[in-house]
Amino acid sequence: MNEAFTFIGVIGGSEVPPDIAAQAEEVGREIARRGGTVVCGGLGGVMAAACQGATDAGGLTIGILPGDSRAAANPCVRIPIVTGIGYARNVAVVRTSQAIIAVDGSYGTLTEIAYALQAGIPVVGLGTWRVSLDDRDDDAIHRANTPQEAVEKAFSLVKPS
Amino acid sequence: MNEAFTFIGVIGGSEVPPDIAAQAEEVGREIARRGGTVVCGGLGGVMAAACQGATDAGGLTIGILPGDSRAAANPCVRIPIVTGIGYARNVAVVRTSQAIIAVDGSYGTLTEIAYALQAGIPVVGLGTWRVSLDDRDDDAIHRANTPQEAVEKAFSLVKPS
Amino acid sequence: MNEAFTFIGVIGGSEVPPDIAAQAEEVGREIARRGGTVVCGGLGGVMAAACQGATDAGGLTIGILPGDSRAAANPCVRIPIVTGIGYARNVAVVRTSQAIIAVDGSYGTLTEIAYALQAGIPVVGLGTWRVSLDDRDDDAIHRANTPQEAVEKAFSLVKPS
Amino acid sequence: MNEAFTFIGVIGGSEVPPDIAAQAEEVGREIARRGGTVVCGGLGGVMAAACQGATDAGGLTIGILPGDSRAAANPCVRIPIVTGIGYARNVAVVRTSQAIIAVDGSYGTLTEIAYALQAGIPVVGLGTWRVSLDDRDDDAIHRANTPQEAVEKAFSLVKPS
Repeated sequence: MNEAFTFIGVIGGSEVPPDIAAQAEEVGREIARRGGTVVCGGLGGVMAAACQGATDAGGLTIGILPGDSRAAANPCVRIPIVTGIGYARNVAVVRTSQAIIAVDGSYGTLTEIAYALQAGIPVVGLGTWRVSLDDRDDDAIHRANTPQEAVEKAFSLVKPS
Repeated sequence: MNEAFTFIGVIGGSEVPPDIAAQAEEVGREIARRGGTVVCGGLGGVMAAACQGATDAGGLTIGILPGDSRAAANPCVRIPIVTGIGYARNVAVVRTSQAIIAVDGSYGTLTEIAYALQAGIPVVGLGTWRVSLDDRDDDAIHRANTPQEAVEKAFSLVKPS
Repeated sequence: MNEAFTFIGVIGGSEVPPDIAAQAEEVGREIARRGGTVVCGGLGGVMAAACQGATDAGGLTIGILPGDSRAAANPCVRIPIVTGIGYARNVAVVRTSQAIIAVDGSYGTLTEIAYALQAGIPVVGLGTWRVSLDDRDDDAIHRANTPQEAVEKAFSLVKPS
Repeated sequence: MNEAFTFIGVIGGSEVPPDIAAQAEEVGREIARRGGTVVCGGLGGVMAAACQGATDAGGLTIGILPGDSRAAANPCVRIPIVTGIGYARNVAVVRTSQAIIAVDGSYGTLTEIAYALQAGIPVVGLGTWRVSLDDRDDDAIHRANTPQEAVEKAFSLVKPS
């Protein structure tokens, strides 16, 4: 095994406005430019945009799907993983990634952020959820202001395995 | 089928300080007093305390376990569900409940809160996570100040099925 | 915890002819008569018939459902566990049971038999699958000829926990 | 998306004698030679041998792991999918594959065969389980006598998507 993959998760809502999709696409493109592989939930919105960007830049994309059929994957998923386990697949999206970039976010995204923090997998947020307990902000999510900064931070946070 | 169950989820960390455990125990007791059944993740901390309270008050308790064996259940779980699917079982804890009470909380609790909000299952928070997006607080979590208030709200939010 | 439950899984197809349903109903009835709790996949066919029999005899029934809603449970499921993980829930049906009775059987039933044999959970077969490897019959499935015999064998095979 | 993947599952025990491993390795090699991608459970035995053969022939390998860590993958898994859902991941191994080759087999293999038959995904058997119901052999498993024949059959059975 002489070529190493770096798996970067991109998470976010399945229906998003155009400006969010544009950010996600740029995230995907930048991941591919740096030789990374996009891991996502395989559906629309942020996931589809990230896969589009990665594919345009010649990168590989993995979509970990909730349903029973590969037909639900967005057109830029190159490797569809068909789990059949519904939203429980969010755990697999997280655990398969060596770092995660959250773009904006639905409640599903929040489950993935929390699973990642629980597992000690680095999370970079681009306009995503903030969470606080006992009125203290949890600063475990690394914040970024641009897609490039988010991807740069994500790669820097990947632990050597 | 003449007797109806009301399933109230109680979620929270598996290791908690005594004051949090005392709150969870009172939540469990109050659920049982009102004729409800406690649904939880079956392990320690908030889960064990809630089961203890419910059992003391003569109530039924369901523990939806992550691992492969019923032996991991806390001693007051009457009905252990052995899923073998790890933290993906958080989805099942949520979906099995008709309303959820979050007491304090770990990251695992945050996954469950987010799964519940995604599914439209009411969440009552007792000193638990606050979440915000775009600097706007998400007020989807109903706040309570005491175990009694939390349980009262949870029952009032259960939708007739 | 002074009252102990004994959890007996009943597995089989979700659409079955009347004679198979009658056997499953008798299996459920006999489990309840002996004080056991029926664990099943919560849907129709063998599952519904077993729940019907158990309920008629005053027993408790647990349905571990594949989908996202308790509404899919058959009417005699008293405790619906809503997993949302699709057919992966077959593992949970098996692991939650202390012994399993397979009545007739679909391919889903075969997954459950195999999961049970893998986990060392006793399986009693009533007209169910036979499996062989290298032309040698696997005799790990205990055979019964009547519902009463099946239930008697299942209870005798439950390991003290 | 101009290059298409063909996903062929290879299933079998995680500890097997050398002659079985040699068969699995040849299956993996032949899949890669034909341009297919090996999908497996990511662990040892048949899985490791198939990945070894595929990697030797320059092919891609996907390991859908049961546990929480990519460290459990055999060394020839190029794309580790970390599910964290235990043996429930067997469903994902099956659903991700367009055809499946079962080499010899443990009980876990039998769950996968049954899941595949349930889902209508073609199964080719190389010295694997035979299953029968009502004393009639189920001939849904396509039989092969050599690794080459197994792979040839598997590719011929892949449905155009």
